[in-house]
Amino acid sequence: MARDLTALFDPRSVAVVGASDDPAKYGHAVAAQALRAPGRRPVHLVNRRGGTVLGRPAATSLAAIGEPVELVVISVPGRGFEAAVDDALACGARAIVAITAGFAETGAAGLARQRAVAERVRAAGAVLVGPNCLGIADNTTELYLASDTFAPGRVALLSQSGNLALELQLRCAPHGLGFSRFVSLGNQADITLTDLVEDCARHEATAAIAVYAEDFGDGRAFARAAADAGKPVVLLTAGRGSASARSAQSHTGALTTSADVVAAACRDAGVELVATPREMTVVLAALGAAPRSSGRRTAVFTDGGGHGVIAADAAESAGLEVPELGEKTQARLRTQLWEQSAVGNPVDLAGMGEQDPGSYASAVGGLLSADEVDAVLMTGYFGGYAASDGGLGGGGTELSEGEVRAARDIVRRHAQSPKPLVVQSMYPQSPSCRTLAGAGIPVFSATEDAARALAAMTVDEAAPPTGIAPLPPPAAPLGEAGYHGVRALLAAAGVPFPAAREITGEAELLAAADEFDGPYVLKALHLLHKSDAGGVALRLADRDALVAAYREMHARLGAASYSVEAMADLSDGVELIVGVNRDPRFGPVAMVGLGGVLTETLHDVAFSLAPVPALRAEHLLRGLRTAGLLAGVRGRPAVDVAAAAEAVALITEVAAAHPEIAELEINPLLVRPGGVLALDARAVLA
Amino acid sequence: MARDLTALFDPRSVAVVGASDDPAKYGHAVAAQALRAPGRRPVHLVNRRGGTVLGRPAATSLAAIGEPVELVVISVPGRGFEAAVDDALACGARAIVAITAGFAETGAAGLARQRAVAERVRAAGAVLVGPNCLGIADNTTELYLASDTFAPGRVALLSQSGNLALELQLRCAPHGLGFSRFVSLGNQADITLTDLVEDCARHEATAAIAVYAEDFGDGRAFARAAADAGKPVVLLTAGRGSASARSAQSHTGALTTSADVVAAACRDAGVELVATPREMTVVLAALGAAPRSSGRRTAVFTDGGGHGVIAADAAESAGLEVPELGEKTQARLRTQLWEQSAVGNPVDLAGMGEQDPGSYASAVGGLLSADEVDAVLMTGYFGGYAASDGGLGGGGTELSEGEVRAARDIVRRHAQSPKPLVVQSMYPQSPSCRTLAGAGIPVFSATEDAARALAAMTVDEAAPPTGIAPLPPPAAPLGEAGYHGVRALLAAAGVPFPAAREITGEAELLAAADEFDGPYVLKALHLLHKSDAGGVALRLADRDALVAAYREMHARLGAASYSVEAMADLSDGVELIVGVNRDPRFGPVAMVGLGGVLTETLHDVAFSLAPVPALRAEHLLRGLRTAGLLAGVRGRPAVDVAAAAEAVALITEVAAAHPEIAELEINPLLVRPGGVLALDARAVLA
Repeated sequence: MARDLTALFDPRSVAVVGASDDPAKYGHAVAAQALRAPGRRPVHLVNRRGGTVLGRPAATSLAAIGEPVELVVISVPGRGFEAAVDDALACGARAIVAITAGFAETGAAGLARQRAVAERVRAAGAVLVGPNCLGIADNTTELYLASDTFAPGRVALLSQSGNLALELQLRCAPHGLGFSRFVSLGNQADITLTDLVEDCARHEATAAIAVYAEDFGDGRAFARAAADAGKPVVLLTAGRGSASARSAQSHTGALTTSADVVAAACRDAGVELVATPREMTVVLAALGAAPRSSGRRTAVFTDGGGHGVIAADAAESAGLEVPELGEKTQARLRTQLWEQSAVGNPVDLAGMGEQDPGSYASAVGGLLSADEVDAVLMTGYFGGYAASDGGLGGGGTELSEGEVRAARDIVRRHAQSPKPLVVQSMYPQSPSCRTLAGAGIPVFSATEDAARALAAMTVDEAAPPTGIAPLPPPAAPLGEAGYHGVRALLAAAGVPFPAAREITGEAELLAAADEFDGPYVLKALHLLHKSDAGGVALRLADRDALVAAYREMHARLGAASYSVEAMADLSDGVELIVGVNRDPRFGPVAMVGLGGVLTETLHDVAFSLAPVPALRAEHLLRGLRTAGLLAGVRGRPAVDVAAAAEAVALITEVAAAHPEIAELEINPLLVRPGGVLALDARAVLA
Repeated sequence: MARDLTALFDPRSVAVVGASDDPAKYGHAVAAQALRAPGRRPVHLVNRRGGTVLGRPAATSLAAIGEPVELVVISVPGRGFEAAVDDALACGARAIVAITAGFAETGAAGLARQRAVAERVRAAGAVLVGPNCLGIADNTTELYLASDTFAPGRVALLSQSGNLALELQLRCAPHGLGFSRFVSLGNQADITLTDLVEDCARHEATAAIAVYAEDFGDGRAFARAAADAGKPVVLLTAGRGSASARSAQSHTGALTTSADVVAAACRDAGVELVATPREMTVVLAALGAAPRSSGRRTAVFTDGGGHGVIAADAAESAGLEVPELGEKTQARLRTQLWEQSAVGNPVDLAGMGEQDPGSYASAVGGLLSADEVDAVLMTGYFGGYAASDGGLGGGGTELSEGEVRAARDIVRRHAQSPKPLVVQSMYPQSPSCRTLAGAGIPVFSATEDAARALAAMTVDEAAPPTGIAPLPPPAAPLGEAGYHGVRALLAAAGVPFPAAREITGEAELLAAADEFDGPYVLKALHLLHKSDAGGVALRLADRDALVAAYREMHARLGAASYSVEAMADLSDGVELIVGVNRDPRFGPVAMVGLGGVLTETLHDVAFSLAPVPALRAEHLLRGLRTAGLLAGVRGRPAVDVAAAAEAVALITEVAAAHPEIAELEINPLLVRPGGVLALDARAVLA
């Protein structure tokens, strides 16, 4: 159930415990900020020495205030922390912001301390942010309880790093991006990233949620909250987590890294994942601008050839398409532009803008209205004519005045179109570009930023719906993870397997051979990599070959039991691998990819939170680098990807319903033109 | 032979034909620039109407000047262009800068016109830049013949786009990067990009050559000039050339794109290839700073956790390594830093910088002196303490003064080390960061820029030497490209093939079968994709199987001839593809990659200018995504990559010596633990 954070973001009164006149102390900065909106709510400063702080009388304790306080900021040395929390709760605090550090980040003892405190806070029906945090701010309620000021705006920033939050703030300013809220996550002892995402989702003044996190806590809950937020969530994170250190015993384990899991969860949830503060700013600038595009077909429009081709390359690198324009659009552009202009795509004014700045607007208008264009990327010099003399307001030349008029005309045409327009300009701060930016058209100085922004504004219509599927209720646990037990479990769920019998001697071997026709496969059981150990014999044509293989293998390996199976026809199939691992933060995570000998070499795998709906599984399979094999190459027939996706759905559902299974792997899952067959299965219990 | 461009870059006298008082005319801007250094050399303005231009008397013609002019800028309408060139040559001009447009860029007639002009210029022993160019500038000789001014510096900028040159200039300024020369390439009718690279290589005041080019002319000559320049060459280009439109008849043709060829030529030549003006600026800033690193092992050093992990990820994305530091280094850092600091890598001051700014310098010094560290990337807040109050010069606080002192200390320690240091700072313009930048330590605002810069400063020691191998002298041309003819050509060069005979009937078939043992392969000849057409029969165990296969195949295909071959043992080998295509600009271009059924699907191929030295071929093969297959996977033995590389060297040498061969392809080239065998060969004559 979502937690009520009203007392945190809009408290009726605030006290800062540890408020100080010493500028080297954090309690000084927070107190100074807290006093910025004195009329909004009572703000009490508490310093155990009393006297005055920042020119105001300071209470010696919370109790000395003499009235309840709804939100208490605690910025005292660690040894006094618990007492301060108790005082706050005694004083009626419904929310605590704990600046004090020295808890989970210092080891197990600190973790135990913060857990105990969090329990006391929750028992009292209150909430706590931190400890080891840098404070919070809510520009919509005039609540300033962090050392930095954040320009007002519509982005909620939830950050586990103070310096990165500061960099984001510096980077956002030139784009006119400001913040509705800021929360320094700290150690998340009580209030978690997930709680805050849920609350910001409900927060009307917040249009986008920007997160920097290293520790996702319950990662699956975070992903679900983000998927359900109903507004963009942008995540900046680093790629190293506990998962990357995990043992690489099985294929799935070896290939699953924390960064893969986070990326998969983001894709499943529709979260925009970014790698640097700069990229986050670009994406926020894009998402802050309406409208979004429903397709990737991009018209690149420039006033000088070089910028056009460079931007076209950048657009394609960002995942957009830059197709040639249709004949009708080209013909219309030809009537609008002059002879030298290129109208294919990129569209290049080729000097016409200098003669007639209005041509910028007519070309953009023509492109926005073309059916085969989903979005427009304008790039190059535009802005430069007005940059030199200040444009309309600055007694500009005819050319610069024309350019600013063109900017207004572009704004008008853009407002009439449902399609996005993104601009790269050498002069992003020029009056013309400020006119565009002021109307919600993102303007960037770097080509790659404009392309990245446009990609962020593009919805992939081919992708399945985002969302985090609920975990199925736990099924009756598997007692042991023997081969035939795992096979039976999956077969019962509907995963197709070839006929097979477990045998322990020649008599059973012969009986099994009578039950189905050859060719046969013989597998020694209870070996980790049975293929590598010579524990698999394929293409045994008849009973005699089967017996001979059994005798040879048993003499060599002496396995306790073997599996006799009907050999599948491999000639027209593709071998896939399907695995599910349990991530400590994100729960069951599925991996699908190319199986067989190339699995380790190519690492051509894709990840998704399990269970994976069949539609999403099919999208993952069709997105593999080797997906061409599924469609059939060099005369081979296409295989039944839908059946493979259905099998992935069944396998991942089984794994998700069995929390006792730490790893489950089907390798190979043979997919053929007529369906799928799981040719091997392996599970490791937790 | 390199052309003498003294008259172009340091002429004794200059005339601007088409000089004008009309600011809308380019002749106005060039004339105004030309007059900026009037004492350096005589500058004559020519306007056919005479009178004055820019307050100076204008000659009505070059002849009217009454003395020879060494360099003539021609900025007249197209119809008067040829006459102006003739006048210039008559006037003794040794160099012409042709601004006038309307030539090759308008079609075949324009191309013919500019060719004729270029011939006249060359016949007169003069040189011509352009036509359709924006002029040139040489800051080292006070020669200003372009509309823009370029801040002085050590970068020579050769650009086919005026606007991109302008953007580069704007971007370079904040990094303190300036220009020795600027040349607008125009249509390269006479003086080419290659000529200019050769001249800038000899130009002492030029430390790096920055190129934006769309048309490389003789691309191989450009690559050779760049490889031999002895100074960094950075190339910005777009990925679409004539090659991408080429027919995809063969595998090689289908996979070779212009962008691949350009990237290969750049790698072969040691040219830094960049995709955007921003990336070019970052690389130039990096290359302008000494020293370069001989390894990729990077220590990431930060003052706040978030920046450290983000930068570590960015460094790895840029191709650097961020290994854990050795115990000795960690122990030393532990004595220098405080308890909370992280010393693994990233190294994180974790607040110590605020207590003791000197810790920044001691940590950087410690990292620069660690044996296991090749380079240091410092990231985060550094600069912020002095940014707020101006540092030492601005009456700063103790903290800000300490930071500036730390910057000076870092400069000192960096100067004593052969290793590069690159800095990302939220405050790149702060006094502390300006101190670093002033001492040649590159400082960037964006993390990814700092990582890219460090990657540009890193020499890959494992890579073979750069350089463009000369084309071998043409061999006697191949008369026709039949299978056995191509085979014989390659076999004579030393490429190993299995035994084979071309046969045209059953009698010859049986005779061939007697010459070597089975199993046999039978191939129908003169089919483009004989495998797909059922024209290849493998594993024919004996004479009977061979005859049966022949009868079946001949009845079905009725080919004029067939090849009977000894079947190679495929069980422990990897199938490669080796091809050579002729690129219109770069000549013979080799492709090596994974052969077999995955060739088209994976596109796991690498390119290089042919002939490819064996060392480079081996590097290409070991750099394939599927290189793991060569090393042996899942119990398979490693194959003889050196033998494969030697075969690539032989095949590409043959192709390079046969200009009549438009395409040559060996697919598969089977590489096994004991050597290689070419199992098929195909050539297309030009």
